[in-house]
Amino acid sequence: MKKEKLTIVKIGGHVVDDDSKLNLVLQQFSALKGLRILVHGGGKRASEVLKRMGIEPRMVDGRRITDAETLKVVQMVYSGLINTNIVAKLNAMNCTSVGMTGADANSILAVKRPVKDIDFGYVGDVKKVNIHGIETLLNKKVIPVFCALTHDGWGQILNTNADTITSALGTALAKSYNVDLVFCFELSGVLQDPQDNKSIITEIDKTLYSDLKKNNIISGGMIPKIDNAFDALEQGVCNVFIRRYSALEHDTGTRIHL
Amino acid sequence: MKKEKLTIVKIGGHVVDDDSKLNLVLQQFSALKGLRILVHGGGKRASEVLKRMGIEPRMVDGRRITDAETLKVVQMVYSGLINTNIVAKLNAMNCTSVGMTGADANSILAVKRPVKDIDFGYVGDVKKVNIHGIETLLNKKVIPVFCALTHDGWGQILNTNADTITSALGTALAKSYNVDLVFCFELSGVLQDPQDNKSIITEIDKTLYSDLKKNNIISGGMIPKIDNAFDALEQGVCNVFIRRYSALEHDTGTRIHL
Repeated sequence: MKKEKLTIVKIGGHVVDDDSKLNLVLQQFSALKGLRILVHGGGKRASEVLKRMGIEPRMVDGRRITDAETLKVVQMVYSGLINTNIVAKLNAMNCTSVGMTGADANSILAVKRPVKDIDFGYVGDVKKVNIHGIETLLNKKVIPVFCALTHDGWGQILNTNADTITSALGTALAKSYNVDLVFCFELSGVLQDPQDNKSIITEIDKTLYSDLKKNNIISGGMIPKIDNAFDALEQGVCNVFIRRYSALEHDTGTRIHL
Repeated sequence: MKKEKLTIVKIGGHVVDDDSKLNLVLQQFSALKGLRILVHGGGKRASEVLKRMGIEPRMVDGRRITDAETLKVVQMVYSGLINTNIVAKLNAMNCTSVGMTGADANSILAVKRPVKDIDFGYVGDVKKVNIHGIETLLNKKVIPVFCALTHDGWGQILNTNADTITSALGTALAKSYNVDLVFCFELSGVLQDPQDNKSIITEIDKTLYSDLKKNNIISGGMIPKIDNAFDALEQGVCNVFIRRYSALEHDTGTRIHL
């Protein structure tokens, strides 16, 4: 039997932070055809709320140190504020959706990251995706909307990177669906020249990727994103796209393939 | 065809505020047989977070004035903090559950309360319960866990009393299920003598209720609760119980019936 197509869209923190960008990407998302899942990052709001509550945000290499107090704020902002608002907006666009953390329907189990040089606190590395609840929603044409939280199965919520959640969902669901991952952010794709938003590299395979890294055209935070994309492709995901949030429905941006 | 039994349990704010009480009531809830829904109040945490963020909580007659800033905090605390934690705890008790606001699966539509003497702000009065998503979860033996939030269908989240949500769910689901509502709190039931936790009035019908009100045995916040209960019974709910949180599975407390 031919597998049905499933598109998993991840929207990054900068898009989530800006109401007009968020509204635009949600309109485009709601117009997409077929089965869909949305995953969203947290953006700067958690840091703003932390500061307002008198807690100093701590980051190491762009990753948040999540102590017990910080976790509460992260939960409040990711799940209570951003996720709930996105779900209300999508439903207003006739796009029936359900907000999820990895604890909901026991869908994403993670392990608290072991302490090595740095104690990241309540940060979780994905261990297992349980697709039953997600499939139930998809079968009923209800869209799961995930924020960047998982749980350990023993009652503890954990903070988990949204890109990682996107890939983990993609690889787990690739057995049942033809999965495309679409990472969308503010640029038009992976760029040959970071100053020129039109210099999109439309296709990247492993050979080109290693050249682009060698020539420093791909560097920094884009490297884990693309490594992640190749992992997902090797585990059965059909296509990975990196695309501008305002061109979600078009065949634009960068396609990463094996 | 005989309708299946459905128990909707509401746990109040004082129970939610206390971790050991919350754990106890969730253990008892997880041991209940058959189809279940959980609804929880917000407790004092929203006021604590408001104060910590430098926003003064405003209450009129025990009801929160919910301006735009307060709504954000209410969403964060009810949905992000309390609801997400309850779902993680229930899943750890092998009780597969999904956290919900009324926006999820478009399940509870409300109208922003019209301004009369007081502008309550983003407070919603329930207009319609959409049972499709809820039934899908119940059919899969997944427990919906609702916090005290609804939406207006146009993208706006609204703060809504948890007792009202409980009754609205009960009456909407009474067409498909034999629904019992269980309101649980810190006392053993409706008491003849508020100082004596053993003086439980085990059964209340309308005649006794009007006597109890006349003699001031039932007063204050208990009156809207019981009015609410009779409304639910008149709209098809089978039984309403008022019960101690630590005796959830026993046949204890006060039964309200027509």
